Amino acid sequence: MKTWNVYLSGEIHTEWREDIERATTAAGLPVQFSAPVTNHEASDDCGVAILGAEADKYWHDHKGAMMNGIRTRTLIGDADIVVVRFGEKYRQWNAAFDAGVASALGKPMIVLQRPEHDHALKEVDAAALAVAREPRQVAEILAYVINGSLPGATAAQAAE
Amino acid sequence: MKTWNVYLSGEIHTEWREDIERATTAAGLPVQFSAPVTNHEASDDCGVAILGAEADKYWHDHKGAMMNGIRTRTLIGDADIVVVRFGEKYRQWNAAFDAGVASALGKPMIVLQRPEHDHALKEVDAAALAVAREPRQVAEILAYVINGSLPGATAAQAAE
Amino acid sequence: MKTWNVYLSGEIHTEWREDIERATTAAGLPVQFSAPVTNHEASDDCGVAILGAEADKYWHDHKGAMMNGIRTRTLIGDADIVVVRFGEKYRQWNAAFDAGVASALGKPMIVLQRPEHDHALKEVDAAALAVAREPRQVAEILAYVINGSLPGATAAQAAE
Amino acid sequence: MKTWNVYLSGEIHTEWREDIERATTAAGLPVQFSAPVTNHEASDDCGVAILGAEADKYWHDHKGAMMNGIRTRTLIGDADIVVVRFGEKYRQWNAAFDAGVASALGKPMIVLQRPEHDHALKEVDAAALAVAREPRQVAEILAYVINGSLPGATAAQAAE
Amino acid sequence: MKTWNVYLSGEIHTEWREDIERATTAAGLPVQFSAPVTNHEASDDCGVAILGAEADKYWHDHKGAMMNGIRTRTLIGDADIVVVRFGEKYRQWNAAFDAGVASALGKPMIVLQRPEHDHALKEVDAAALAVAREPRQVAEILAYVINGSLPGATAAQAAE
Amino acid sequence: MKTWNVYLSGEIHTEWREDIERATTAAGLPVQFSAPVTNHEASDDCGVAILGAEADKYWHDHKGAMMNGIRTRTLIGDADIVVVRFGEKYRQWNAAFDAGVASALGKPMIVLQRPEHDHALKEVDAAALAVAREPRQVAEILAYVINGSLPGATAAQAAE
Amino acid sequence: MKTWNVYLSGEIHTEWREDIERATTAAGLPVQFSAPVTNHEASDDCGVAILGAEADKYWHDHKGAMMNGIRTRTLIGDADIVVVRFGEKYRQWNAAFDAGVASALGKPMIVLQRPEHDHALKEVDAAALAVAREPRQVAEILAYVINGSLPGATAAQAAE
Amino acid sequence: MKTWNVYLSGEIHTEWREDIERATTAAGLPVQFSAPVTNHEASDDCGVAILGAEADKYWHDHKGAMMNGIRTRTLIGDADIVVVRFGEKYRQWNAAFDAGVASALGKPMIVLQRPEHDHALKEVDAAALAVAREPRQVAEILAYVINGSLPGATAAQAAE
Repeated sequence: MKTWNVYLSGEIHTEWREDIERATTAAGLPVQFSAPVTNHEASDDCGVAILGAEADKYWHDHKGAMMNGIRTRTLIGDADIVVVRFGEKYRQWNAAFDAGVASALGKPMIVLQRPEHDHALKEVDAAALAVAREPRQVAEILAYVINGSLPGATAAQAAE
Repeated sequence: MKTWNVYLSGEIHTEWREDIERATTAAGLPVQFSAPVTNHEASDDCGVAILGAEADKYWHDHKGAMMNGIRTRTLIGDADIVVVRFGEKYRQWNAAFDAGVASALGKPMIVLQRPEHDHALKEVDAAALAVAREPRQVAEILAYVINGSLPGATAAQAAE
Repeated sequence: MKTWNVYLSGEIHTEWREDIERATTAAGLPVQFSAPVTNHEASDDCGVAILGAEADKYWHDHKGAMMNGIRTRTLIGDADIVVVRFGEKYRQWNAAFDAGVASALGKPMIVLQRPEHDHALKEVDAAALAVAREPRQVAEILAYVINGSLPGATAAQAAE
Repeated sequence: MKTWNVYLSGEIHTEWREDIERATTAAGLPVQFSAPVTNHEASDDCGVAILGAEADKYWHDHKGAMMNGIRTRTLIGDADIVVVRFGEKYRQWNAAFDAGVASALGKPMIVLQRPEHDHALKEVDAAALAVAREPRQVAEILAYVINGSLPGATAAQAAE
Repeated sequence: MKTWNVYLSGEIHTEWREDIERATTAAGLPVQFSAPVTNHEASDDCGVAILGAEADKYWHDHKGAMMNGIRTRTLIGDADIVVVRFGEKYRQWNAAFDAGVASALGKPMIVLQRPEHDHALKEVDAAALAVAREPRQVAEILAYVINGSLPGATAAQAAE
Repeated sequence: MKTWNVYLSGEIHTEWREDIERATTAAGLPVQFSAPVTNHEASDDCGVAILGAEADKYWHDHKGAMMNGIRTRTLIGDADIVVVRFGEKYRQWNAAFDAGVASALGKPMIVLQRPEHDHALKEVDAAALAVAREPRQVAEILAYVINGSLPGATAAQAAE
Repeated sequence: MKTWNVYLSGEIHTEWREDIERATTAAGLPVQFSAPVTNHEASDDCGVAILGAEADKYWHDHKGAMMNGIRTRTLIGDADIVVVRFGEKYRQWNAAFDAGVASALGKPMIVLQRPEHDHALKEVDAAALAVAREPRQVAEILAYVINGSLPGATAAQAAE
Repeated sequence: MKTWNVYLSGEIHTEWREDIERATTAAGLPVQFSAPVTNHEASDDCGVAILGAEADKYWHDHKGAMMNGIRTRTLIGDADIVVVRFGEKYRQWNAAFDAGVASALGKPMIVLQRPEHDHALKEVDAAALAVAREPRQVAEILAYVINGSLPGATAAQAAE
């Protein structure tokens, strides 16, 4: 049975990844999740922590961003499905950037965002195959996509 | 030994998928089948069931079709071989669409259809490597392609 | 200034191609249209007319369909935009097949079809960037996409 | 002599595109610029203006965003170089999305942004080959890339 | 109007290329032909003539074959259509090799060969969209593919 | 440890495949071999045996060649290395065709052939990374490529 | 859990590969390393040792280099991450060549080199996502990229 | 008639580019040459000259190398043929890097280098289709590849 690789991009300050993972585990779905490094501090400082300090904040950031790129490019490239979460805070250009990468690579994309951002995200949403409001819905989409089962129904007979 | 991924696209109202799967299992072939969600109702309503109702039937359908796309694009992309079945009823543009996708991706394609549709399907057939009339023939093709064995013969020596 | 290549796929029994071409010419748009051979009889018989008769109707059709494929594969591959028209008659699997090809090649697609086919075409529509009802709308989309001008408005300032 | 196609993505409320175009024209550079539709209102309403009104704002936006996608996907795909401008206002997820697309397509990218966004844009900048602060610098980069000439110097001998 | 690039691969000891070119010129078709170097001696000796003699015949041949590869790989890559001619003499593995390249690159292919080789060429033919017997037929295919006109008929109305 | 997929294309009338397989098994190499169906009769007749007889020998062959294509395209696409054997008999255009496919797909290729064919195969050889004379040499190449060990030497320390 | 394929290209006269492998093993990272054949003599002579002697040193080298190419092209193609080491001695054009291959294939690249080569390697470094000075740093990058853990810190919570 | 795009990579301290260009102009060949910026100082300082000074020499170099990358990636991507010159001085890792890029992109490559570097360049040479010693030979290769004419001979009849 196929194991589905699902990359969870975007916002790192709430528990949305854990919510999705718990629900898919509970449903027994064959999913392997991946994500960026979600420790904000480690993500910011990894470059200088390993390769040496920079006097200039720009290059401090640059070294870290490139190092994170080794992880994220590889895992998005491996993914069957990319989920991109836009949260309440910060500019989150990184999430939109990942959405663009996923789109250009032809990866099926699910966007997870609140309705108040609908207008600002309309181009990103237009490149997605589903726009969800709650992590629970992402797990339900995965259950349907993998098993054919819909919420509240006896699981449909999986075609696989 | 290689496991062959075979995607079974198209008509969902008869037992053709089960017929093929039974025959390949009986022959002990290393095949992993996949397919769209074949529960017609679930396939139509998945979008609104998970992401919320739509007032407009067009968008009701659209949400469902896009959600089904997450599954079908991934599984066709994974497939070694795509089988496309055209049945007796409905317009089945979806089957022809999948055939076009498989063709453009360079996937070996087997079409399964009745002779009365030969003329209407001639461009689709021209992109296929085999045109079968019965599910049994598809299973026989898989046996030959994987093992080199022909029906009614002692299995030829597999080259693999 | 860029010339846009637009491939007009699908139904060959009404004047929809001419309608679109007239409207884009009137608007002075830099568009180069291409299409399958729209002479139905020539399209059916080209294979045997050039390469010799076939006793079997299946191979008669096959030779023609493959010869048409030389033209259609090349021109769809060259296209910036693919328009697919579903008409009132016939099964038109060929149109849906072209839509699948265009989708898998990442070509922006416009579907032109009547509302009564919305449900049957929902997967095809889900792969399109626009679903139009009238040829006039396709010409208006081209005008907007190329010049930024909307119908009934003084032409917006083109960004190009 | 090669004509360079340069796509100018992002912010649409200041004159940065005109600034770059004026400077490259003054320098006599063989550049063909392209851009999204920069008339904000047309860009928001194009979908419903051509294809018919939507009761739901979400789908109103969606139809427009998809129609804009016909233009932007084509022109980014044609571009030799993609310039992405992040301005002072709005969330500009669209700009970051285009940057992701350009990156995944392997297009050389120039980001144009103010230093106060350096930290928020660090992943986007890490995918760019240049980060400029002023439109003038983008024009100077184009002059150098095309002609080998640096500002304030007698034009270096072009290698082409 | 599109100019079609047609690569004429294979046998170099008869006038088949000139026959096709004369016929397409007479028909006024917008075709640009290309081909390998057809001077047999130059083709064999080009490597050592330019880069210096080799004591070993194997490397003499190798240097020439690689130099010819610069031309043939480029021109096959540029081609819209690849025509492969198998003649009466020699082993012509080179022609079959080019056919494999064309097939893997997704180029529409026309094979030109005598019926006595049908069985030996069946895999090559199976990758072609047309199998012709005479150069005249290749020119007729080009006329049909480009203009929609069939031999002996008043030219059909071209769709382009 | 990586399992290497090696496709053995070409001549089917001698034991060269078994020779290579025996030698690599003896050396304990992690190789998975694949090949076309090497039962000549089955390979010729598979199409009509499964899909029904053809009156015309050309279509008899065509159906078989296309069915074999399902197997060969898939397995060449899966291969890390393609070995192509040219034997003493028949025209073997099929082998040269496979070599062209392998080359265009960027697969490392080993050609196995007798010196008397060097001149006729010079273009095919120029696309190969090794030209061997004996099956034993192919097995030695695999041992070196996988383990770094050379014949007659104590196995070099594998770098993997 | 994903196993990461890491290709270690470049200098073969010091223990840098073993240093990295020891450190990643100690950290329990799921990494599969690969490399060119690092036995210098075997790498130089493999071609003639297996395929027969050459009178001309140029072709002696050529046969070996092509045989090494079977290994290196395959393993770089399989790699998630390519590490390229520039040492103190020799010209090491081979390392720079591999860096170019990795870059064009879109592989995340880590360069390992001493500061005195910074200027000479600036174009290579510009294509890398990290430039390390010590093998230890490469192991630390792998630990961070795979687990999110930074050196000297309690391992961050892996996001995977 | 096709214009051939030829990129001249590598050494910038001798007149080899001008030699090739003079000879191809004299021969009337339809070639469009491109190259990196060959003004050494401009090439080193372009980044800081346009985008502002850097305190750290490493980032000074980095900004310049990335800016040069906008030019070189685009022009190598456009090239039909890539010529890479290794000169007498400096380490020239940049040339070897370009050779790797050209190879991975499938570009026919000509290496221009002195015999004393044969051993050090053997892997680079193994990826080339010709290894020349003098600029004159590169021009002669272009004449042969484009026109079929060999030096000292009356120009062969061009096949194009």
